[in-house]
Amino acid sequence: MKKIGIVMGSASDLPVVEKAINTLKDLNIPYEAHVFSAHRTPTEARDFALGARKAGFGAIIAAAGMAAHLAGAIAANTTLPVVGIPCSSAKLDGIDALLSTVMMPSGIPVATVAIDGAVNAALLCAQILAVEDEALARKLMEKREKDAANVLAKDAEIAAKFNN
Amino acid sequence: MKKIGIVMGSASDLPVVEKAINTLKDLNIPYEAHVFSAHRTPTEARDFALGARKAGFGAIIAAAGMAAHLAGAIAANTTLPVVGIPCSSAKLDGIDALLSTVMMPSGIPVATVAIDGAVNAALLCAQILAVEDEALARKLMEKREKDAANVLAKDAEIAAKFNN
Amino acid sequence: MKKIGIVMGSASDLPVVEKAINTLKDLNIPYEAHVFSAHRTPTEARDFALGARKAGFGAIIAAAGMAAHLAGAIAANTTLPVVGIPCSSAKLDGIDALLSTVMMPSGIPVATVAIDGAVNAALLCAQILAVEDEALARKLMEKREKDAANVLAKDAEIAAKFNN
Amino acid sequence: MKKIGIVMGSASDLPVVEKAINTLKDLNIPYEAHVFSAHRTPTEARDFALGARKAGFGAIIAAAGMAAHLAGAIAANTTLPVVGIPCSSAKLDGIDALLSTVMMPSGIPVATVAIDGAVNAALLCAQILAVEDEALARKLMEKREKDAANVLAKDAEIAAKFNN
Amino acid sequence: MKKIGIVMGSASDLPVVEKAINTLKDLNIPYEAHVFSAHRTPTEARDFALGARKAGFGAIIAAAGMAAHLAGAIAANTTLPVVGIPCSSAKLDGIDALLSTVMMPSGIPVATVAIDGAVNAALLCAQILAVEDEALARKLMEKREKDAANVLAKDAEIAAKFNN
Amino acid sequence: MKKIGIVMGSASDLPVVEKAINTLKDLNIPYEAHVFSAHRTPTEARDFALGARKAGFGAIIAAAGMAAHLAGAIAANTTLPVVGIPCSSAKLDGIDALLSTVMMPSGIPVATVAIDGAVNAALLCAQILAVEDEALARKLMEKREKDAANVLAKDAEIAAKFNN
Amino acid sequence: MKKIGIVMGSASDLPVVEKAINTLKDLNIPYEAHVFSAHRTPTEARDFALGARKAGFGAIIAAAGMAAHLAGAIAANTTLPVVGIPCSSAKLDGIDALLSTVMMPSGIPVATVAIDGAVNAALLCAQILAVEDEALARKLMEKREKDAANVLAKDAEIAAKFNN
Amino acid sequence: MKKIGIVMGSASDLPVVEKAINTLKDLNIPYEAHVFSAHRTPTEARDFALGARKAGFGAIIAAAGMAAHLAGAIAANTTLPVVGIPCSSAKLDGIDALLSTVMMPSGIPVATVAIDGAVNAALLCAQILAVEDEALARKLMEKREKDAANVLAKDAEIAAKFNN
Repeated sequence: MKKIGIVMGSASDLPVVEKAINTLKDLNIPYEAHVFSAHRTPTEARDFALGARKAGFGAIIAAAGMAAHLAGAIAANTTLPVVGIPCSSAKLDGIDALLSTVMMPSGIPVATVAIDGAVNAALLCAQILAVEDEALARKLMEKREKDAANVLAKDAEIAAKFNN
Repeated sequence: MKKIGIVMGSASDLPVVEKAINTLKDLNIPYEAHVFSAHRTPTEARDFALGARKAGFGAIIAAAGMAAHLAGAIAANTTLPVVGIPCSSAKLDGIDALLSTVMMPSGIPVATVAIDGAVNAALLCAQILAVEDEALARKLMEKREKDAANVLAKDAEIAAKFNN
Repeated sequence: MKKIGIVMGSASDLPVVEKAINTLKDLNIPYEAHVFSAHRTPTEARDFALGARKAGFGAIIAAAGMAAHLAGAIAANTTLPVVGIPCSSAKLDGIDALLSTVMMPSGIPVATVAIDGAVNAALLCAQILAVEDEALARKLMEKREKDAANVLAKDAEIAAKFNN
Repeated sequence: MKKIGIVMGSASDLPVVEKAINTLKDLNIPYEAHVFSAHRTPTEARDFALGARKAGFGAIIAAAGMAAHLAGAIAANTTLPVVGIPCSSAKLDGIDALLSTVMMPSGIPVATVAIDGAVNAALLCAQILAVEDEALARKLMEKREKDAANVLAKDAEIAAKFNN
Repeated sequence: MKKIGIVMGSASDLPVVEKAINTLKDLNIPYEAHVFSAHRTPTEARDFALGARKAGFGAIIAAAGMAAHLAGAIAANTTLPVVGIPCSSAKLDGIDALLSTVMMPSGIPVATVAIDGAVNAALLCAQILAVEDEALARKLMEKREKDAANVLAKDAEIAAKFNN
Repeated sequence: MKKIGIVMGSASDLPVVEKAINTLKDLNIPYEAHVFSAHRTPTEARDFALGARKAGFGAIIAAAGMAAHLAGAIAANTTLPVVGIPCSSAKLDGIDALLSTVMMPSGIPVATVAIDGAVNAALLCAQILAVEDEALARKLMEKREKDAANVLAKDAEIAAKFNN
Repeated sequence: MKKIGIVMGSASDLPVVEKAINTLKDLNIPYEAHVFSAHRTPTEARDFALGARKAGFGAIIAAAGMAAHLAGAIAANTTLPVVGIPCSSAKLDGIDALLSTVMMPSGIPVATVAIDGAVNAALLCAQILAVEDEALARKLMEKREKDAANVLAKDAEIAAKFNN
Repeated sequence: MKKIGIVMGSASDLPVVEKAINTLKDLNIPYEAHVFSAHRTPTEARDFALGARKAGFGAIIAAAGMAAHLAGAIAANTTLPVVGIPCSSAKLDGIDALLSTVMMPSGIPVATVAIDGAVNAALLCAQILAVEDEALARKLMEKREKDAANVLAKDAEIAAKFNN
């Protein structure tokens, strides 16, 4: 199975990114995590992107805050799907990172998920790999069924408490 | 090759969506376009999503405006990657559609592109198919090189006009 | 008297929703609370909406956060009045949920109240039932008079403290 | 059948409001339209609201722009359901009117629809009257089926044009 | 000297409003504080405004949050200058109250100050009274000089600490 | 009667400002209009403010767009009431000018009106002068009555056209 | 004198950028204009930045729209001052470009000017060169004096027309 | 070496400003810190700006919150480069200060950095001085290399912890 690359712009994004790592682990999807900054280590970010397809990656998650250029900088240097996580920072609640990640110009797409949406970034990568991997597709469907069962268990719980 | 599904919430979104269609055509990627509304034809939207993997789709583009629920409604019923295009409408410049498309709760990701970003939605689908398709990956890289050449041609033109 | 359906997208919305429940209880209006997610349990959400009129509901409250599609998903499957509560989540203060709930396209209205405005959602349902129920209308008027009296009591208290 | 009151804050809101009037006409629902300003004719606005239930109204639509206080001013003086249409004005695209209409304090709900969402305001009133009126409920369901058929006709048209 | 009326929409606005009261006290300007809600006690709010000029008021401060209609409701019923304080509430940081207060339609002005800007609301009222009251104008100028001296004292302190 | 000073930051603001001038003319209130920029002619702006009280002004209107500092710069140099008009410019619809005008720090109030709200700026100045001028107060009340009559005439017109 | 580099992300930004060019021409400051995209030609953008100091540039202007990464990408590869012009595009009025340009993380500053603020970008570069260039500083001061004279001429014109 | 002036609008901005001071100290760049308010001590702010070039300053940092006019007021009175730090205050997360600082009209640029971006404000001043100072340019490059090394050390740490 292809690996998922996970790049964060700063080690301070790790609490968000760790949820993506854990989601991939739960699905037994191989991954590799890195700290590369689009601005402080532009060469390393670029080189990682340039070599990613050959290195066996199937998709890359890029997480960054503020003027979040990381996902775009990765995407500019690979034709692998790049998933952007806009990270909320101390100010502006992440709306700056959302717009900096999603409003990409024609030619270089970034698949953007919700602010701090690390679980969905990992699931999106899994869904991308599952396009050609039936076993993974089944595993994702089972996870969905488990999620649904959890909602319905909560429904039963609340019905028991409030409805008479 | 797997097909790309293209669903728009209203026929009025066609001028945006047509750019995605044309991009897929240029890349020789098969596609199928539909008008299904998450609110006016919820059953058709759901059934399309439920059957998409079996019908040979590899990814689905969903384009909608205002309280844009279409991408989420499709994504809730398939584990294929769903790419959301927030369409700008008469009011609010598309910020309503952007937030309605991208801020998905954990479990159901939507790969969101820029407001009216139909070209990138198509390219993202192509990149997803290209994860396991080297010929398509090469074609995408060639397109990138052509785009870059166009930028540099403009650079030469402007240099000739302004720099002496 | 017809019942009020209360659907929340996640059990985490309960602290907001409970204020709606308590308001309905105070007015002796029957209700039934559920956890159904537009994205994780779309079938249950739809089936609840499809059967609601026959099941004796008079209106449905739908509470959800982020890309809040629940109210729209319910409204798409019933002609009962649907009242949407946009719930504030960790990010963006609920503006995402507000726009996702209120900016519905023509044909499928959602009666939207303020962010986290659960008390008003319940009162709005009561006012809807009271269109044809004079006793309930009187009870609502009495509640208004009590609210007004509370304001005036505060006015007297503050006047006593600050005005001389 | 009860009447629907339609109040606009200024005659300049008529182009928006007329869509609500036409929707009510199509459904054969009696209505009465007025121009009352919360600020320029506060007494008339209040008196209309105070007398509305007795005068046979079942719900009131209030349309206003900018610091749109009209719906709230009406709602403060009646326990009938009040539906607010935030009208977009020259500046700010209607976001001022949306917040001024929807963010009502506890006790006085306004059922807010989308910016300039006059058709939905009328439909919401119809749905409110239809809670106790099976014939109207059936008519609303038929309208939904017609809307759905229109979407599917567009789907067929676009499929014929783009899918091969 | 004319009195300043201070009306707050809810007793919960008192922590903000108290700063206006203290500022007026410091300037020896008579005032009268009230809790009147535009929505819960519209009659009292209106009657206060209608009688304010005759009762010896020279200006009225109105403080309210969310869909803050109070200043507009007061202004609609008096030709005295009305100063609006948009109060921040739990959600949206007060931007809803700001737009609801400041975006008044032509004909009924509200002199809006900053979100939670109670001190400035009081100073603005003082400046209004000082148009025809030289002693008060002098007192305001002395306050400005004291404020400036405080800034310069801080400047000296910081210069001593940081500049060498 | 005291004069009203009208300062605009740029001659391009004249189309907005002219509505204030016309409103003052209609009320027979003397005025004096100037173009002074807080940034391009800071000395003239300041000197005008410093001398305004002695020169017989009773209030000053300041109109500016973008990072609209003019009202604050005037207010910093006079204790006369300063009314700020945030002017919309080509970008951002005037929200930049609104926040730059209204969010003044404690000590230096600016009485802010709506974006491009020049008529209300003039009326607010009139109301300030009318605190001690009964004739002007009566004239303002007559204007309000005329405005109300206009609304009611429109009401009659629309009732004749739509209500049967 | 050192040259000013002017980089635009797309030839479509030329109408904005041309104002910067003309401002530099008026001041007789040498410049060199280029079209380099942070995403489509990342290598060229980077190489230009890496070589800029040695090539005799004193500052670099970077103009881009949407998720405007260009200024940051340039700034990441040079210690020359980089001035960012956020360009407004079809959607969102340039607020996306503003946040993407200005919210840079610690370590890599971008000197951001107003949306489409090309004249000021050029003047800022001139001011940077003028730190050590008295002749240019004098020229800039003369330009300021001319700007001020223009404002005062407009003031005289408007005074003649409106003040009597 | 020329000095950097650091002006804050209020002593309460010191926690932000101190990071700029420390950054300058680390680079051995002389500085002078002041508290001058554009509104409370406009004369001192202006006089500081007017005399800054002669007093040996090479650039000025201006930090202020809310309707942040300080940077503009300084910039209006000097042709030295002025760097604006929009400070976040209790409300609105600093978006008011950002727009008030960056949206300057043509003629008077302010080099704006991120909300609370004091480190970058200092670095930008250093980069401005380094245009003609090779030793400082080298020092800045060394700092960049140290920053990059720190990122790569974090990368190694996280790789060791998560990648196997």
